[in-house]
Amino acid sequence: MSSDCKMIIFIGDGMGGRPVESLGGKTTIEAANTPNLDAVAAGGESGYLHPAGYGIPVGSDTSHMAILGYDPFTFYRGRGPFEAKGVGIDVLPGDLAFRCNFSTLEGNVVTDRRAGRISSGTDQLAAAVREGLKDGIDGVEVIFKESVEHRAALVLRGENLDHRIGEVDPHVEGVDYWECVPLPEAADDPNAIRTAKIVNEFVARAHEILDAHPVNQDRKAKGLPPANAALPRGVGTAVDLEAFEAKYGLTGAMIVEVDLVRGLGAYLSMDVIHVDDATGGADTDEMAIAKAVVDAWADHDFILVNIKAPDLGGHDGDAAAKIASIEKVDRAVGYLLEALDWSRTTMMIAADHCTPCSMMDHSGDGIPIAVIGYGVRPDGVTEYGERACAGGSVGHITGPDVMRMLASYAGRAHKFGA
Amino acid sequence: MSSDCKMIIFIGDGMGGRPVESLGGKTTIEAANTPNLDAVAAGGESGYLHPAGYGIPVGSDTSHMAILGYDPFTFYRGRGPFEAKGVGIDVLPGDLAFRCNFSTLEGNVVTDRRAGRISSGTDQLAAAVREGLKDGIDGVEVIFKESVEHRAALVLRGENLDHRIGEVDPHVEGVDYWECVPLPEAADDPNAIRTAKIVNEFVARAHEILDAHPVNQDRKAKGLPPANAALPRGVGTAVDLEAFEAKYGLTGAMIVEVDLVRGLGAYLSMDVIHVDDATGGADTDEMAIAKAVVDAWADHDFILVNIKAPDLGGHDGDAAAKIASIEKVDRAVGYLLEALDWSRTTMMIAADHCTPCSMMDHSGDGIPIAVIGYGVRPDGVTEYGERACAGGSVGHITGPDVMRMLASYAGRAHKFGA
Repeated sequence: MSSDCKMIIFIGDGMGGRPVESLGGKTTIEAANTPNLDAVAAGGESGYLHPAGYGIPVGSDTSHMAILGYDPFTFYRGRGPFEAKGVGIDVLPGDLAFRCNFSTLEGNVVTDRRAGRISSGTDQLAAAVREGLKDGIDGVEVIFKESVEHRAALVLRGENLDHRIGEVDPHVEGVDYWECVPLPEAADDPNAIRTAKIVNEFVARAHEILDAHPVNQDRKAKGLPPANAALPRGVGTAVDLEAFEAKYGLTGAMIVEVDLVRGLGAYLSMDVIHVDDATGGADTDEMAIAKAVVDAWADHDFILVNIKAPDLGGHDGDAAAKIASIEKVDRAVGYLLEALDWSRTTMMIAADHCTPCSMMDHSGDGIPIAVIGYGVRPDGVTEYGERACAGGSVGHITGPDVMRMLASYAGRAHKFGA
Repeated sequence: MSSDCKMIIFIGDGMGGRPVESLGGKTTIEAANTPNLDAVAAGGESGYLHPAGYGIPVGSDTSHMAILGYDPFTFYRGRGPFEAKGVGIDVLPGDLAFRCNFSTLEGNVVTDRRAGRISSGTDQLAAAVREGLKDGIDGVEVIFKESVEHRAALVLRGENLDHRIGEVDPHVEGVDYWECVPLPEAADDPNAIRTAKIVNEFVARAHEILDAHPVNQDRKAKGLPPANAALPRGVGTAVDLEAFEAKYGLTGAMIVEVDLVRGLGAYLSMDVIHVDDATGGADTDEMAIAKAVVDAWADHDFILVNIKAPDLGGHDGDAAAKIASIEKVDRAVGYLLEALDWSRTTMMIAADHCTPCSMMDHSGDGIPIAVIGYGVRPDGVTEYGERACAGGSVGHITGPDVMRMLASYAGRAHKFGA
């Protein structure tokens, strides 16, 4: 109980996968050169994680909730509030929060859902939308803010808003964007009907403002797809989560790249640490992230790290890109193996979900995990990967087991009984 | 999810077992020649299934419910309604449904619980019982229908019937059949007392009718045990189960041999497919069953198959018979391995429970499972069996995991979160 052992969960986002034919049936983890991840397995205990239970494909939001011990079946209210909180917008009870993409429209057709992954100028675009809609829509306040690249968050604040409404972003390109309509179960509900109208009005007016904006005139002149629309999706309402430190008695830090997870950290009142050059893309500076972990180690009991890039390779079905990103994770882990005091650290390597290149989306497959450091009983597994970890001594665990198990390794769990 | 991958659960009824001394400590699966089951394990992922949880010996009814994701602890109402539905009798709210055996009585002693596994004439016997009891008993309608071999179903329909009554079938031979009495907790309940009386009257009058029937006179003349009694057991009430297709969004077929499971399929509004020469016995035509699976594959998303024979060998304590039946399962599986499009199929091999020859009844032992086809990550297990599957990457799963896991392999699971 008096232990001051630190606990780290190091997540390669979407890192797990399925056999890839062009890799001779290996998964991308198995095919990647990962001496450091293998060293974790060899020096520790391995197993499988099913964050929300066997066979349930989780999102990054629900998975990180589950891994941190917050039951997503009970507490999840949609991705919107995490996205909003991730860019610093507080989502209050009664608010509706949405993830938005800056997208390219030709007429009503979405020709690029990410506006060429626009990388600059979205702050000016968002400011223009805010200015144009500063008087609100039908008495509802409009809060809109850019995130990284093509990402943004929208919060609607007013009376009688109803979350039972559909998406606007059609999730594929080459089709019209969707008109927001009430969900079938709320088709006749006046609040849902009005809310959908407000969302549609937001989309129409934002499109008008954005299409005329100098940033987009400039993009068009350069032959780049204009970010002339902001398409909402993933509506959610305010969440009520106990702060991490109150729940566990541990000071906690989060070093993560995407606002979706950063927003969760903010909700949990964890220290959400910014790292310059952590881009969330394949070009991210994994060593800067690793150094930030070492810094945070000094004054936090618990650190959650997430490197996003492997997930992108999976979604793109690009095995080579996914392998390169997994090797970035490996190098960051290697830095920690050198730099940290392992007599006072327990670390779990995991993914939040599998994103097999063959599916180009999340799967419900078991996630390989490996735990090294203080308290472990090395189990003879010598490699980190989908097949190798299945034989480890941890067996199969789910979300609620993770924090309990880590605290136990670290000697920081509370005895139940006498 | 846009996958059109088909899902199959192939069950060898009671196929799991325990070491058999005369087999040098091998189980019947381990001793059987099963190249095709082994090929499933070698090409897929293995593990253990505990349908209703560790150490709970399940029946075929509760197990199939659990495997299909219908919690038997919540929804099970006794075997009677499944038996009745399996022979086409609808069980309505307020009805009591029973499984019956045609048995042989000498005086009150049950000399053969299955009347020599009578294989013909039970349709005439059942018709005679219906005719004799067409005016009902004490205002209660009597619905009685034969199933295969010695099996039959009884439904009582009327006011104020109470299910809290005991069995009539004594479950062993050489003893008197049991008088139906209220269960201890309903000993003073007038409805339970009356219901037990009605059951006793059914047994007495059916015995009278059956003993005098020409079919039985003929059997006696031939030295065969007469089917001169119908002994009820397994009382149950109407069940309320969400249809399979509504629950999963999958079209489902059931190709099974016993009415108990067929009745469950009917309750779930699955296509319960009849196969000529699927006898439910050791003489069943397993290739006809396999061909029916291939036919059903074309126009169903999901198929549950059950071959009954291995369970019979277990109940009889006949290891050689059980091995022969397991080899039938193996041949049927082999046909599917040849005939189906495995780029669009995920299949799990399982048993619904273990029926060790040493116990001659169901045990709560873990059931070996193996999953092959779309989405799996072959785990290095090369053999299907109790010991081999324990080392596989699936680990230990329970009923609620099965459908979720299969849907995940098949790419048909819905993402929870973003």
